[in-house]
Amino acid sequence: METADLGLPVDVPSTALFTDHYELTMLQAALEGGTAERRSVFEVFTRRLPEGRRYGVVAGTGRVLDAVENFRFDAGLLGFLRERRVVDDATLQWLASYRFSGDIWGYPEGEVYFPGSPILRVEGSFAECVLLETVILSILNHDSAVAAAASRMSSAAGGRPLIEMGARRTHELAAVAAARSAYVGGFETTSDLAAGFRYGIPTVGTSAHAFTLLHDTERDAFRAQVDSLGRDTTLLVDTYDVAEAVRVAVEIAGPELGAVRIDSGDLLLVAHRVRQQLDRLGATETKIVVTSDLDEYAIASLAAAPVDAYGVGTQLVTGSGHPTCSMVYKLVARAESADPKAPLLPVAKKTTGGKTSVGGRKWAARRVDEHGVAEAEVVGTGPVPPELADHQLLVQLVKAGQVVAREPLDVARDRHAAVRDRLPLSATQLSRGEPVLPTEYL
Amino acid sequence: METADLGLPVDVPSTALFTDHYELTMLQAALEGGTAERRSVFEVFTRRLPEGRRYGVVAGTGRVLDAVENFRFDAGLLGFLRERRVVDDATLQWLASYRFSGDIWGYPEGEVYFPGSPILRVEGSFAECVLLETVILSILNHDSAVAAAASRMSSAAGGRPLIEMGARRTHELAAVAAARSAYVGGFETTSDLAAGFRYGIPTVGTSAHAFTLLHDTERDAFRAQVDSLGRDTTLLVDTYDVAEAVRVAVEIAGPELGAVRIDSGDLLLVAHRVRQQLDRLGATETKIVVTSDLDEYAIASLAAAPVDAYGVGTQLVTGSGHPTCSMVYKLVARAESADPKAPLLPVAKKTTGGKTSVGGRKWAARRVDEHGVAEAEVVGTGPVPPELADHQLLVQLVKAGQVVAREPLDVARDRHAAVRDRLPLSATQLSRGEPVLPTEYL
Repeated sequence: METADLGLPVDVPSTALFTDHYELTMLQAALEGGTAERRSVFEVFTRRLPEGRRYGVVAGTGRVLDAVENFRFDAGLLGFLRERRVVDDATLQWLASYRFSGDIWGYPEGEVYFPGSPILRVEGSFAECVLLETVILSILNHDSAVAAAASRMSSAAGGRPLIEMGARRTHELAAVAAARSAYVGGFETTSDLAAGFRYGIPTVGTSAHAFTLLHDTERDAFRAQVDSLGRDTTLLVDTYDVAEAVRVAVEIAGPELGAVRIDSGDLLLVAHRVRQQLDRLGATETKIVVTSDLDEYAIASLAAAPVDAYGVGTQLVTGSGHPTCSMVYKLVARAESADPKAPLLPVAKKTTGGKTSVGGRKWAARRVDEHGVAEAEVVGTGPVPPELADHQLLVQLVKAGQVVAREPLDVARDRHAAVRDRLPLSATQLSRGEPVLPTEYL
Repeated sequence: METADLGLPVDVPSTALFTDHYELTMLQAALEGGTAERRSVFEVFTRRLPEGRRYGVVAGTGRVLDAVENFRFDAGLLGFLRERRVVDDATLQWLASYRFSGDIWGYPEGEVYFPGSPILRVEGSFAECVLLETVILSILNHDSAVAAAASRMSSAAGGRPLIEMGARRTHELAAVAAARSAYVGGFETTSDLAAGFRYGIPTVGTSAHAFTLLHDTERDAFRAQVDSLGRDTTLLVDTYDVAEAVRVAVEIAGPELGAVRIDSGDLLLVAHRVRQQLDRLGATETKIVVTSDLDEYAIASLAAAPVDAYGVGTQLVTGSGHPTCSMVYKLVARAESADPKAPLLPVAKKTTGGKTSVGGRKWAARRVDEHGVAEAEVVGTGPVPPELADHQLLVQLVKAGQVVAREPLDVARDRHAAVRDRLPLSATQLSRGEPVLPTEYL
């Protein structure tokens, strides 16, 4: 992770404009009305998991911490807001000195979540908290969607390694975040160099049809690749005839050939044939990498095939059918007045038309059975029952504006694997079903 | 569009690492093997439209031009590649002076496309072209997916304005590109301040439930908002009881109240009731803005409702069920040798397993009937028939490495509206069907 500090090219000078226009106009109205300084508690949660999913995966927490730290309005941004008359001068002046000075608690990255889980809790003045809504939701909704897909794929893959290859299927910077989330969810490597650069994720590459087509013959292409990259390279064998390509590949690289990649056709059938052929040719250690529109179901269907690694693109970076979560950022409690000592009142939207929420500042704990297996997500607003005290889920991430819980990405990755292992077995069933844990409100 | 030049905060110093690892290893092998300088033609196309869609929308072209211009390997990036041993020193040296010096032709931004349309054609040495694959596909696949959804929504909305509100549902920088694509596809405004800053798109805001909940009563909230933002503001009326909220809103703001926003419930029913109530209260000019999980179908279903504007989030930024296109970047022709005068040979992947392509450098034209209505997408590799000469679709975007076709975003937006108007009427049917134009190969 040694290069992560360099930041470029995916750092941005400020995250303050990743903000919806109305956050600033509400701020202006609250400043003018004298309510902006009321102590407030906002919570991020989701009312439901994507249809049929058994659990959600919290990802992006580390990026949220970066975003909060870099949420600053410099002269350029303020000039833009002034020129566009988004808010008045008093508000601009307030924004110029903006630094988040409150507290943030949250589920640590890699944790799982369920409907109603208070995934993130942001506390401070209304003014300082309301501004963070858009960027926090952007990050968590995107990153968690990808991590959930990655987690299902890594379950489906058993112990076989997964390579993230989706950069070309999503926005170029979303791709970097997606590679990061995939890593948290259980992927081993990425093809995305920017993700390697920014987050230290191991990068790998195979070869493309273009390289073969550049050469006069497939043999020329294989020879050029092996000569330059060594015998342990991965040769792409489906440009013309697969059997012929495998024959030539082993002829050129010898049984030390690292791997062959199959990127089209009936992967189950082709993998079996290629394995038999490789073995016949003595290349018993040569691995088979398959790619081509894989999702968790396709991966699971290849469990009995002689496949050594999966490269996954589109379906990973688009959340395997669910490219976003439905996380919301809601005011759940606020002070009666701007007095810092004023007590907090629970608040909640109440209409018959839906989108209602549960007011009050919440804790959450995961109740486990005598074998340590999770049996319920317990969410409450009162005191924490003593038997749940050691099973609480929220940890402090930011204290008085200072990030206090930065951690290497590997910690989040390991956490996810450990947490998933403690869910009931049906959590990793791919078939559609209910959340694997019920959410209980105390 | 006056602030677009400032660049921040979504500019990145270099786009060169938005690249898959294998592009660089292939480059190394081609440099070493003496094939890197073979003149090459790569084309971007898609084999199919998303299931049931009638047409695709090209978006992101302007961003592609920025990406190509900024594709540079500085010392930091080269140091990373060296440290990770991605490629050898000779390749690093080659990368250090990388500037794209070839030509790019493409469908202009806002054009529509069909299966097989050569959306972008990149010509130069193999080495300089192959490196651009990942970033070009990232941009076009993402941006075009959003633009296609936007175009369908804007058809469904008739002339009513659409507000892009999806920032919180997607990656924070993907959101900026999504707002840009939505604008090309027919949206009027965005809530995303970064999109306003970077691309000059008009930004707008309404109000959130949090603002109402911050106050002791809804009346207090409305008064604070109107006092600060004026009577032409948009008040959110579904936090508690809609009818009561509308009554109080008009009482406070008077009939000059700009708009009310409805964000939950049965929008058709509620919009009718709110319209009647507003009219009864004399607020006949007060507009109704609806939001809440809208897609093109929900928008169409509100055609008969008294709705003045639609705010669209999730379904827009996730491409309304199709968050990515399936565009690919394929080598279609290359020279026999590194001699700059060597003739180009068409090349194509040929296997029985699928993913085959049509070799050869292509032109494309849209054949129209006597009324000027499009009737076919014609794609060819030979000479252009004289009757199609004036209907060609590809324009030169980059000439010898220099961008020659930069244009304001409004031009792309206007182009899209004009092009869509010249498609057969069934193009804007929302029901699933075949591409509205057949693709003919000459």
